[in-house]
Amino acid sequence: MNNPIEQRAREEELVERVVRSFDACPDPRLRQLMAGLVRHLHAYIREVGLTEQEWGQAIDFLTRCGHITDEKRQEFILLSDVLGASMQTITVNHQAYGDATEATVLGPFFVEGSPEVPLGGDISGGAPGEPCWVEGTVTDTGGKPLAGALIEVWEADEDGRYDVQYDDDRTAARGHLYADDQGRYSFWAVTPTPYPVPHDGPVGQLLAATGRSPMRASHLHFMVSHRGCRRLITHIFVRGDELLDSDTVFGVRESLVKGFERQPAGTSTPDGRVVDGTWSKVQFDIVLETGSKRLA
Amino acid sequence: MNNPIEQRAREEELVERVVRSFDACPDPRLRQLMAGLVRHLHAYIREVGLTEQEWGQAIDFLTRCGHITDEKRQEFILLSDVLGASMQTITVNHQAYGDATEATVLGPFFVEGSPEVPLGGDISGGAPGEPCWVEGTVTDTGGKPLAGALIEVWEADEDGRYDVQYDDDRTAARGHLYADDQGRYSFWAVTPTPYPVPHDGPVGQLLAATGRSPMRASHLHFMVSHRGCRRLITHIFVRGDELLDSDTVFGVRESLVKGFERQPAGTSTPDGRVVDGTWSKVQFDIVLETGSKRLA
Repeated sequence: MNNPIEQRAREEELVERVVRSFDACPDPRLRQLMAGLVRHLHAYIREVGLTEQEWGQAIDFLTRCGHITDEKRQEFILLSDVLGASMQTITVNHQAYGDATEATVLGPFFVEGSPEVPLGGDISGGAPGEPCWVEGTVTDTGGKPLAGALIEVWEADEDGRYDVQYDDDRTAARGHLYADDQGRYSFWAVTPTPYPVPHDGPVGQLLAATGRSPMRASHLHFMVSHRGCRRLITHIFVRGDELLDSDTVFGVRESLVKGFERQPAGTSTPDGRVVDGTWSKVQFDIVLETGSKRLA
Repeated sequence: MNNPIEQRAREEELVERVVRSFDACPDPRLRQLMAGLVRHLHAYIREVGLTEQEWGQAIDFLTRCGHITDEKRQEFILLSDVLGASMQTITVNHQAYGDATEATVLGPFFVEGSPEVPLGGDISGGAPGEPCWVEGTVTDTGGKPLAGALIEVWEADEDGRYDVQYDDDRTAARGHLYADDQGRYSFWAVTPTPYPVPHDGPVGQLLAATGRSPMRASHLHFMVSHRGCRRLITHIFVRGDELLDSDTVFGVRESLVKGFERQPAGTSTPDGRVVDGTWSKVQFDIVLETGSKRLA
C-alpha cells in the first residue's frame, strides 16, 4: 500500500516547511539554532520511526521533569548531565587551550554566596567526612601567578549529600577564598566520596530502566575566576576511585584525576591542626586561560 | 592554540562513551531510542557550537514549560506541535494507505468522555458561533460502510477558545455520536474560525522571538474508531482560509481541506431546524484503514 518514495517526500517536505517557518526570525543565531533543532529532531523521529505511544511517553517524561524541578532541584540539568549533553557543551566551548586546566560539568548544586574562609581555613562547615587538606597555585597560561584569584569550592559530605539536599537550610561543604600574592591557596575540606545523583525522580527512573548506575565518581567542585582570564568550572577526582570509568554524568577527564594521599591518624598536618583520625591531602595547580572575552 | 583533530576526537569519544553507557539496557527498543537521541543531541550541540549560555537558556525554557503545564494545559505538546515534531510523528506512523483518510495532529484539547448526541444532534452545547451542518459517511478502505462507527468531534468556539480554556468548567463544542447502519452520520456544530494556540507562555514567547504567528488555520477535530480498523485522528480545514499555508502546527493536508458552504439567512436546513442568520454545511466522507493491529 505504501510508496516509499512518496512517503519520504512527504516527510522531507514537512521538515523543510518547519525550517522555513523560522525564516523571518530577526535574530540570525536564534534562526540557526531553531533550524538545526528542527532538522535533528525530525531526523531522529524518522530514523527511529518514533511511534505515537513513544511520543506520548516522551511528553509525559518531560512533564514529570518539569513538575519535580523547583528552586532546589533541577531535573532538566540532571537529564542533560546523564545524556552527556552538559559535558559535550563544555567540550565544545573549552577546546584544548595549551596547558589550561580542563573544565567539567557545573552540576546542579552550585549556590551563589557561599561563606568566605581565610587561606588555610575550613570550608566543611561541620559536614561529616574525613578531613582533606587541599593546596595549590593559580596561574595563567603564561605562567604568571594570579594574586587574589577567587576560588569557590563545593562538595557532597561523606553521606553523599550536598547541604541543599537537607531540609534544615544548613550551609556546609562549600565556601570561597582568595589566592595570596603568589597565587597560592590552601583550605580544609572533606575527602570526596562517591554518591548517586538524585534518582528518586524521572531521570532516576530512566537510569534504572536503561540499566545504568546513578553513581558519580568522587569529586570536589571548583569555580575559579580572575580578571582578564576565562572563568574555569571544574572538579578534581580521586585517583583509584573505581567509578572513574563509569561516572554517570561523563565528567571525568584524566588530567583532573588527582592523588588524594591518605595520612595515618596522628600524622602532623600542614597547619598544625589536630585531626582526630586519618586525613588526606591533595595538590591541585590551576591554570586559567588568559585573555578570554568570555567570563560566564 | 587548538588542534582541530584532537578536539574532534575528544567530542566523538564522548558521544561514543555516552552511547555505550546504554549498552546494558535490557529493552532493545529503549536502547535504540536512547542511542539515537544521544547521537542527534550531541551532533546538534557540536554542529551549532552551542554556548554554555544558550544551554542555560534551553534549561530555563524547558523548566518554564514544565511549570506552566497542568491538567488543563500541556506546553510540551504545544512545543512539539510548533516544531512540527507532532506532525512528523504522525506522518511517519500513518503512511499513505490507499485511500484512507489522512491523519493530523491531536492537539492539546481532546477530552475523554464528551457528551453523546444523536444523529443530527448538536454538539455545540451553546458555544458561540455560526451553525454548521456536518454530514458524511464512514467506510473502510474496502468501501464497506462501518455501521456504528464512533465519531468524536471537538472544536474552538468563534471566540477562538475551547471549553477547557474557560474557567467555568463548561462542556461545549465537543461531543460524540455513532454512524447509522449504512455508515452515515450528521450533526450540528459551529463553523470553524482561526484562533491562536495558547501564546501567553514560553512557547508563545518562542514564537514571538522567532517572528512566527501563533495562529492555527480554522478546523474541526475528528477522532473516528471502529472495531477492526485503525483509529483515525484528524481535522477538516476550511477551503479558502488564508491561514492554510501558515498553520502554526503544520497540520494542514490538502486532502483534509473541505468546502464549508455558507448558506444565506433563511435557507432551509437539512433537518428543518430554524436558524437565525447564516449557516454553513460541509461533507466529510471518512475512510478508515482496515485490519490494522494498532488501535491506539
